[in-house]
Amino acid sequence: MKKLSRIAVTPGEPAGVGPDLVLQMAEHIWDAQIVVFADIEMLTERAKLTGVTTQLIAYTGQTEKAPQGSLYVEHIPCDAPVTPGELSPDNGRYVVETLRQACAANMDGDFDAVVTGPVHKGIINQAGISFSGHTEYFAAQSNTSDVVMMLSTDGLRVTLATTHIPLAYVSRAITAERLDKVIHIINTDLKLKFGIKEPKIFVCGLNPHAGEDGHLGREEIDVIIPALDKLRAEGLNITGPLPADTIFNAKYLDEADTVLAMYHDQGLPVLKYKGFGEAVNITLGLPFIRTSVDHGTALDLAGKNLADPGSLQKAILKAIKLANREA
Amino acid sequence: MKKLSRIAVTPGEPAGVGPDLVLQMAEHIWDAQIVVFADIEMLTERAKLTGVTTQLIAYTGQTEKAPQGSLYVEHIPCDAPVTPGELSPDNGRYVVETLRQACAANMDGDFDAVVTGPVHKGIINQAGISFSGHTEYFAAQSNTSDVVMMLSTDGLRVTLATTHIPLAYVSRAITAERLDKVIHIINTDLKLKFGIKEPKIFVCGLNPHAGEDGHLGREEIDVIIPALDKLRAEGLNITGPLPADTIFNAKYLDEADTVLAMYHDQGLPVLKYKGFGEAVNITLGLPFIRTSVDHGTALDLAGKNLADPGSLQKAILKAIKLANREA
Repeated sequence: MKKLSRIAVTPGEPAGVGPDLVLQMAEHIWDAQIVVFADIEMLTERAKLTGVTTQLIAYTGQTEKAPQGSLYVEHIPCDAPVTPGELSPDNGRYVVETLRQACAANMDGDFDAVVTGPVHKGIINQAGISFSGHTEYFAAQSNTSDVVMMLSTDGLRVTLATTHIPLAYVSRAITAERLDKVIHIINTDLKLKFGIKEPKIFVCGLNPHAGEDGHLGREEIDVIIPALDKLRAEGLNITGPLPADTIFNAKYLDEADTVLAMYHDQGLPVLKYKGFGEAVNITLGLPFIRTSVDHGTALDLAGKNLADPGSLQKAILKAIKLANREA
Repeated sequence: MKKLSRIAVTPGEPAGVGPDLVLQMAEHIWDAQIVVFADIEMLTERAKLTGVTTQLIAYTGQTEKAPQGSLYVEHIPCDAPVTPGELSPDNGRYVVETLRQACAANMDGDFDAVVTGPVHKGIINQAGISFSGHTEYFAAQSNTSDVVMMLSTDGLRVTLATTHIPLAYVSRAITAERLDKVIHIINTDLKLKFGIKEPKIFVCGLNPHAGEDGHLGREEIDVIIPALDKLRAEGLNITGPLPADTIFNAKYLDEADTVLAMYHDQGLPVLKYKGFGEAVNITLGLPFIRTSVDHGTALDLAGKNLADPGSLQKAILKAIKLANREA
C-alpha cells in the first residue's frame, strides 16, 4: 500500500483570507493527510464568524487522514487577538513561527510538502523581523543558496531566471553562472520532484526576437547561447533561446516540460492569462516540496467567507501530486 | 449608398510567400476594392507555378470590385527574374517601389488603406537601400515623426510604448515625453480610425508588480504615474499603471479598448498566445490606415502554395473594417 503523504498548510496572515480559505479545505477528500500550522483558537473563531462547521482536531502525530469535514491543526498560539481585516504587528512573530515549524517538520522528514497561504511582508517587517518572502525564508532555514520560482497551470509550467528585481537590472542579472545554476535546479527538480526522466527545457531570449542575431541586443550571443551550449554538452535537453512572443505556441508547448523566461513580466502574463487565476507557485531547489497560492491577503474579504478557495485548493492538489510523485 | 473602400495590398518580397498568399485572396468576396501593387507578370508566373487560377486585371483607376476569382493589379515591374525561395538584391529597389507607390496612393486619397505582406530587410539593405522596416519607411514617406505599433486579435488590442530595442535600453526609453506622445497617438487613432468615442486605455507598469510602491523599481513613481496623471487631467480615460501579470485578466480586458505595454515582450507573448497566429499588426499615427501580416517571408514555402493565408486574410479584413469605420 502506498504511504500516506502528509502535507503542512500554513494559512499565513491571520487577519487575511488565509484562515477563511483553509477552513474550506475540510470539505474535500484529499489523497494525503492535511495538517494546518496555525492557532487552533483563532481558526475556531474564524469558523464561527464565517458560518463554517469545520471540526478542528489537535494534531499529535496521528498518521491517518482527518474525517471529511475536519482538519488536523498543529497548534501554534497567536501573540495577540486577531480582528479580520486589521493587520497587527503583534502577530508578526506568530506568522513567521508557523513557517519555521512547517519548514522544520519538512526538514525532519515528518512531512512531505508545505503549502503556504498569503502573508503580509510589510507587517512582519513592522514587527521588527526582517522578512522578504516565503521563498527567501525557506531557503535560509534550509541552508539553500539558490531557488527557482515556477508557476504552473494545466499544460504550462513557467520558470523564471530572475524574479522580483527592477526591469533595468535584468540584463546585468542574466549571467552564465546564474543560467547554469537555474537550469540545473530546474532539471534536477523536474526529475526528482516531478518524475520526468529527461526534462525538456525551452528557454526564452532576453531581448525582443531573442536579439535577432545581435541587432536587438547582444546578451543572447555573449551570454545565453554559450551557457545553453555548455549545458547541452553536459547532456541536458535544452531548446532555445527562442523569442518570447513565439515560444508560447502549441508546437513548442506540447514539447516543453517548462518554459524558462528571463524575467517576471516575460513569462507570467501568459501563464496567468492561460491559468485564469488557478496558477500554483512552486519553489524549486528547496530540499522539500513547497507550493503556494498566487494571491495576497485580501484583507477586505477576510472573515466574510467570500474569498475564492480555488488557488489554495490547486496548491494543495499540486503539493499532493508532487509528494505522491504523480506530477 | 456607402462609398466603396479601396485597399492597396503589397505582397512584399517576390521570392517569398507574399505572392502565393495574395493570389489566394481572389477567392474571397471582400467588402472593398482590392488592388495589388506588384509585378503582374511575376504574379502570373506564380499563379501557374502554384496551380491557382486567379485572373489578374490591370488596374487603371476602375472603381468597382474585381469579380470573384480575380484581382486588380497596379503593375510595378520587377528589375530581375524571380525564383521562389531565392532572394536577389536586384529586386530590392522593386520591393521598396511597391511600398512607395502604395503609400503615395494613400497619401493622395485615392486609397483608404494599405495592407503589407512580408519583406526581407536584409536583402533590401544589400541592394544598397537603407531600410529598417515598413513602419519606419511609411513614417518617413508621410513625414510622420512618431508612430505606435498595435497588435490586434479578437478581444484584445496591445499597443507598445517601445518596440524593437534591446531590453537593457527600455527603462531609459520610457520617458514622460514618450508616454505622452504614444498615448495621444493611441487615443486619437482609436477615435478616428476605430470610431471609439472615449477610448479606455489600460497601461502596464514597467517593473514587476508595477514596481510595488517603489520596492521593485522607481520608474512608475518617477515617470509613469505623473505622465498618466497629466493625461487624465487632459480628459483622457486611462487606467494604470497595473502589473503586467494581472492586467490581462477578463475583468480588465472586458473594459479596455487597448492595453499599452511598456515593451515588446511584456505585451506580445499574451497577444500571440491568445491570437493563435491570427494577430494583425496595425500602425497607429500614420495619416492613413496600415495593417500587416505578422509573419515573415517563409522562403522555404514560396511557390508551393503551402503557406497559411490566415494572417493576410485577417490583415485585409481589419483594414477594410477600419476603412469602413466598423472596427
